[in-house]
Amino acid sequence: MDTNAHLPVPPTASAPPRTRPIKEVPELAEQAAELLRTPSALAELSSSEARCVVAYMRLVSFAAGATVIREGDQVHTGYMLLVLSGEVSVETAEPGQVGEHVDISALGPGNLIGEMGLLDGAPRSVTCVAATRVDAGGLSREALELLFTENPKVGAKLMTAIAKRLADRLRAAGDQLRIYSQLVADMQREINAMKRRAL
Amino acid sequence: MDTNAHLPVPPTASAPPRTRPIKEVPELAEQAAELLRTPSALAELSSSEARCVVAYMRLVSFAAGATVIREGDQVHTGYMLLVLSGEVSVETAEPGQVGEHVDISALGPGNLIGEMGLLDGAPRSVTCVAATRVDAGGLSREALELLFTENPKVGAKLMTAIAKRLADRLRAAGDQLRIYSQLVADMQREINAMKRRAL
Repeated sequence: MDTNAHLPVPPTASAPPRTRPIKEVPELAEQAAELLRTPSALAELSSSEARCVVAYMRLVSFAAGATVIREGDQVHTGYMLLVLSGEVSVETAEPGQVGEHVDISALGPGNLIGEMGLLDGAPRSVTCVAATRVDAGGLSREALELLFTENPKVGAKLMTAIAKRLADRLRAAGDQLRIYSQLVADMQREINAMKRRAL
Repeated sequence: MDTNAHLPVPPTASAPPRTRPIKEVPELAEQAAELLRTPSALAELSSSEARCVVAYMRLVSFAAGATVIREGDQVHTGYMLLVLSGEVSVETAEPGQVGEHVDISALGPGNLIGEMGLLDGAPRSVTCVAATRVDAGGLSREALELLFTENPKVGAKLMTAIAKRLADRLRAAGDQLRIYSQLVADMQREINAMKRRAL
């Protein structure tokens, strides 16, 4: 099985994807396994589970300035990336700002990118650009299927950890929605009071 | 292993939890497996995977008016429920409404409740009340661990399906946040314009 199939493809056909199995570089694989277990990624995994997952990852490198993932991309989205070195800028329209404010946040080693794409291959919701040269561990949906077949218990633990991560983000989004709800109610009261004074 | 340990406990010690393995009632187990695969639950599961998951569920019954889960509950939250029959009212503070509006929505057969609790046992974020007599299939974290050990590939598929469901909800929350962001920006412009006119 070609576990490379859905990893990112560079924009020009003249530059083939520079990826290879991380396990070919044992030192890097060990480092990737540790980074996969950091609180910013999937802290629930044991050391041996993380090493097992990393064995299914490929090393993907991006030059400074390259687009790592692009908002709206609908093809080749079926993978997630674990940042191993370098810095990635994430560009999102920041809710709560008046006008078209674009928020830039930075991701570094131990951060995960695109785990929702790994699950369902749906369009990307943010754009990520390599701020420096970036090395990342890429896990494709094909590699995930292979993991489920060969090491299903580790697969179950990996998906549990990803689901927990999504549950945390969902709770945070719920908190944000409650704050917005309150803000909108307060602003509506202010507008109503100003209208009454204007009469 | 007592897979019953974290299923809901009724408020009085005099009424022990009326739960038993769903697989003891083959007709009900078959119905539960079909309901688990509906689009409102975990459509990605195959028929045999759903039957395997149901074999780890216990039947939990609630009288009309009974609290199914309570917002803020921090103990005994480590399970999810699949509604098999009856209707459950969900009470959530509705964002976007002025004041303390409580939204009531209804869940019926084929709806899942509390899958985030199954993942991490964190406090419940909504209150659910049985509007009628309700029968549900309860899957506890203990039962999930047993599933991971005995049928890890099905466990991996189950967690993938739950993670996809959470990813869908997270994307929907992101859309809602963008709408709020726009609404707040529009209201701020209206307030600014009214202030200018009032000068």
